[in-house]
Amino acid sequence: MAEKVIIDTDPGIDDAMAIFFAFQSPDLDVLGLTTTFGNVPVSMATRNALTLCEIAGKDIPVCEGVKLPWVGPESTYAHFVHGDDGFGNINHPTSTADPDPRSAAQFIIDMAKKYPGEVTLVAIGPLGNLAMALKMAPEISTLLKGVVIMGGAAQVPGNVTPVAEANIWNDPYAADIAFSAQWPFTMIGLDVTYAVSYTQDFLAKMAQVNPKLGGFVQKAAQFYVQFYSSVFQSTDQEVCYFHDAMALAYVIDPTLFEVKEGYFRVATDPLCYGQTTFAPLDKMIAPQWEGRPKMGAALSVDKARLTQLFLDTYAL
Amino acid sequence: MAEKVIIDTDPGIDDAMAIFFAFQSPDLDVLGLTTTFGNVPVSMATRNALTLCEIAGKDIPVCEGVKLPWVGPESTYAHFVHGDDGFGNINHPTSTADPDPRSAAQFIIDMAKKYPGEVTLVAIGPLGNLAMALKMAPEISTLLKGVVIMGGAAQVPGNVTPVAEANIWNDPYAADIAFSAQWPFTMIGLDVTYAVSYTQDFLAKMAQVNPKLGGFVQKAAQFYVQFYSSVFQSTDQEVCYFHDAMALAYVIDPTLFEVKEGYFRVATDPLCYGQTTFAPLDKMIAPQWEGRPKMGAALSVDKARLTQLFLDTYAL
Repeated sequence: MAEKVIIDTDPGIDDAMAIFFAFQSPDLDVLGLTTTFGNVPVSMATRNALTLCEIAGKDIPVCEGVKLPWVGPESTYAHFVHGDDGFGNINHPTSTADPDPRSAAQFIIDMAKKYPGEVTLVAIGPLGNLAMALKMAPEISTLLKGVVIMGGAAQVPGNVTPVAEANIWNDPYAADIAFSAQWPFTMIGLDVTYAVSYTQDFLAKMAQVNPKLGGFVQKAAQFYVQFYSSVFQSTDQEVCYFHDAMALAYVIDPTLFEVKEGYFRVATDPLCYGQTTFAPLDKMIAPQWEGRPKMGAALSVDKARLTQLFLDTYAL
Repeated sequence: MAEKVIIDTDPGIDDAMAIFFAFQSPDLDVLGLTTTFGNVPVSMATRNALTLCEIAGKDIPVCEGVKLPWVGPESTYAHFVHGDDGFGNINHPTSTADPDPRSAAQFIIDMAKKYPGEVTLVAIGPLGNLAMALKMAPEISTLLKGVVIMGGAAQVPGNVTPVAEANIWNDPYAADIAFSAQWPFTMIGLDVTYAVSYTQDFLAKMAQVNPKLGGFVQKAAQFYVQFYSSVFQSTDQEVCYFHDAMALAYVIDPTLFEVKEGYFRVATDPLCYGQTTFAPLDKMIAPQWEGRPKMGAALSVDKARLTQLFLDTYAL
């Protein structure tokens, strides 16, 4: 039976690739999309989520979520990574459909209660909606089947600061609430997402096996590839990374990943702001990490099988 | 010409291995040993440093240094790693020689002024003496040829907490002073020291090529091997790590290491206390790391050549 998922998202180019991947997968039943600020402002995230549903012909609720971080002022957005439109400046017609009237947090709570033990929440943006839902209805921690996030960096450097990954850095106080809940929580972080780079060749294959959805991803990803090429100047080839889709791949096939259990805390102090500090269960621990809930961190991934899963699913 | 070095140390089993290695090397001229608390209390560190000089028949000054961290109460020592005596409980007769009357910091300043541009300070314990010397005589930052430390973890987890290495965690406020000075500074951290493990076979070879000094190391290291075996229970073989000697190997032959330039700060906030946060020059930077002095972090090492250097030098 297909796994019920809610995708909490800030589209975003790799979000688009992830959402189409989920729509295509026979193993996933996407109950709805909830949006958050992150790559783009939340209003644009909602509009983009509706556009993705329209492109894919998918009639599901899109619920708008948090506009601001849990603590502090409005975030800076990643237009330099995802373009002014969040889709690499391709000027794709924007959906004019209406979002669902419920807030993202309310939708998460409603689905958790409607299908107890069945829903996996897949968060591929900052974690404000998760914190909000936990504050509104703490019981969702036992009602959800699981939570899988793309974010953080357990044992590798960050990508916004030397120690912090973008999704967590965007809202570390909310992230620490999500990392502090007693729920089945798995982090798909930079440890695995930076381990798998994709070239133009892969993008061309995506467009070939699925001209509509893969073609959209190929087109949008050109800006994204340029960004990564400017960052990783030492790389010979143009590459990009599909961070977000890997969280959905984990729901479809957890055996793609090596996951280690341990204790997390999210740093909110100025120097390490947004760092996901990870204490594996099998190593020494320090008072700062004691008594924390056990969570999983993906530390390695089977690249070949993952890539095959992406292509096979887009080809369906 | 042999490089003039001062070794700032808290012996310590791997300190003993490092100090004998330096004494044996024709490429190093050890001007003196300065001591610090760390693996053991500073009084024991001084006594052990004198004992090592006695065993090796080396008549050089041993100057006692700081007893306490820069901020906060007395540290906890690592007797569980190095034994009650700092030498793996082998009951070796303790030297009754007198230390030099100068403080460690004063000796560092004196040597820097006596041999301007010629002295490399190799710190293989917590960095209190470096901070003290910098506060007493800031001009040493331009008088020393360089500073090489064993400590920290640039892009790998820590060994005392999930993010902090022992030498830095023992005195992070002092470390941040040392990491903030404008001097040629290279960090030999867990990135490279945990990359090279040594088995009983290596210890036996050390004892074979040099029964007196290598024999002492082999004997003392038995306790040390037991500690590492209890920590790394997943390892098939008994192993240990000669962290400290790698800082001296760097002075002898920097080509053994891949060193990346970047900016450092040492965390003193509670969660990440003692973490050495590293922003490589070739990656994005964040305000917290801007305007910092450029420093080097060793990120990889040629294991085979390093091991050969240890054995060849002990065999001399």
